[in-house]
Amino acid sequence: MEDQLRKHIEKVVSISDKEFAHVLSHFSKASYKKNDFLIQRGEEVNHCYYVVSGLMKLVYDDVDGKEHIASFAMKNWWESDFTAYFTRSKAKLALQCIEDTQVFCITLGNYYKLAAELPKMGHFFLEKSNAGHIASQRRILSFLTSSAKERYGQLLKEHPTLFQRLPKTLLASYLGVSRETLSRMSS
Amino acid sequence: MEDQLRKHIEKVVSISDKEFAHVLSHFSKASYKKNDFLIQRGEEVNHCYYVVSGLMKLVYDDVDGKEHIASFAMKNWWESDFTAYFTRSKAKLALQCIEDTQVFCITLGNYYKLAAELPKMGHFFLEKSNAGHIASQRRILSFLTSSAKERYGQLLKEHPTLFQRLPKTLLASYLGVSRETLSRMSS
Repeated sequence: MEDQLRKHIEKVVSISDKEFAHVLSHFSKASYKKNDFLIQRGEEVNHCYYVVSGLMKLVYDDVDGKEHIASFAMKNWWESDFTAYFTRSKAKLALQCIEDTQVFCITLGNYYKLAAELPKMGHFFLEKSNAGHIASQRRILSFLTSSAKERYGQLLKEHPTLFQRLPKTLLASYLGVSRETLSRMSS
Repeated sequence: MEDQLRKHIEKVVSISDKEFAHVLSHFSKASYKKNDFLIQRGEEVNHCYYVVSGLMKLVYDDVDGKEHIASFAMKNWWESDFTAYFTRSKAKLALQCIEDTQVFCITLGNYYKLAAELPKMGHFFLEKSNAGHIASQRRILSFLTSSAKERYGQLLKEHPTLFQRLPKTLLASYLGVSRETLSRMSS
């Protein structure tokens, strides 16, 4: 697990063994089973998660109890209810395992502490945050400019393996269409 | 202008006169007239912009020439085609003035240089990037969970003055509805 986190960081910045030990001391490790919740709606969000293995969904349940998928989190992704995490407010989203999942967890205090103590990690977190911002802008544009069918094609192209791993109902929820509409698109 | 940028930064971190002079040396200033382009589609994106005054739109023109609005940038906003800016690729979006606009401009090189040289500014940029990420996540959820009418109400609540400053066609484009649908919603 540790080795994967180090490789992931070293794609952006090179760090020594000593620096990596310092980085690691700011994280905790956790393992979850399929269907476990890492974040529950209405509760405090104490961690941002780096996904070592597995698959999770970040979901919003609307007033009618309908589930909407904000994103899927898989290997090498950083995920949280970022609004709740960064503003220390209660979670509006839930983070739940679709498969057994292993993560590294970091508190907001440790996140800013590590960024301040080790400028390389400050740079790494800045790059990750900007990448997250970019990915979100792309998804906003896809809602404005693409049909659900085009969004389906885009997801298939970017994450081909997801389609084997995901129940169709979750895919439909991510694309913002009904299960029936999805069947028509994918046939 | 300088004073406004300093106040904006000091909402997050306190800086001395000397530090602010160092910050300023990484920015250039520019003024644009209504309808001027700061970013043109297909061109390089050399700057991220801090808006001192005025109003701009960040737009995507689809294959049919239809304009989609990714965001409006007003006083105290940071705006760019972030994908193009951070990945040094050609712009897919255009940034154009709706009103006369004054900005501070920073190159990507100076952005990372300033973040590295002055840890306080590293922290400031990290907070700004996280805030941008949060705002984008909120807009994604609004597409998944809200009707155009609800998105209209949300925009009205968050930015009431925008409604006096914006032509209705631009509002419709931001909400992802036709001009006619917007008229029905706002009547």
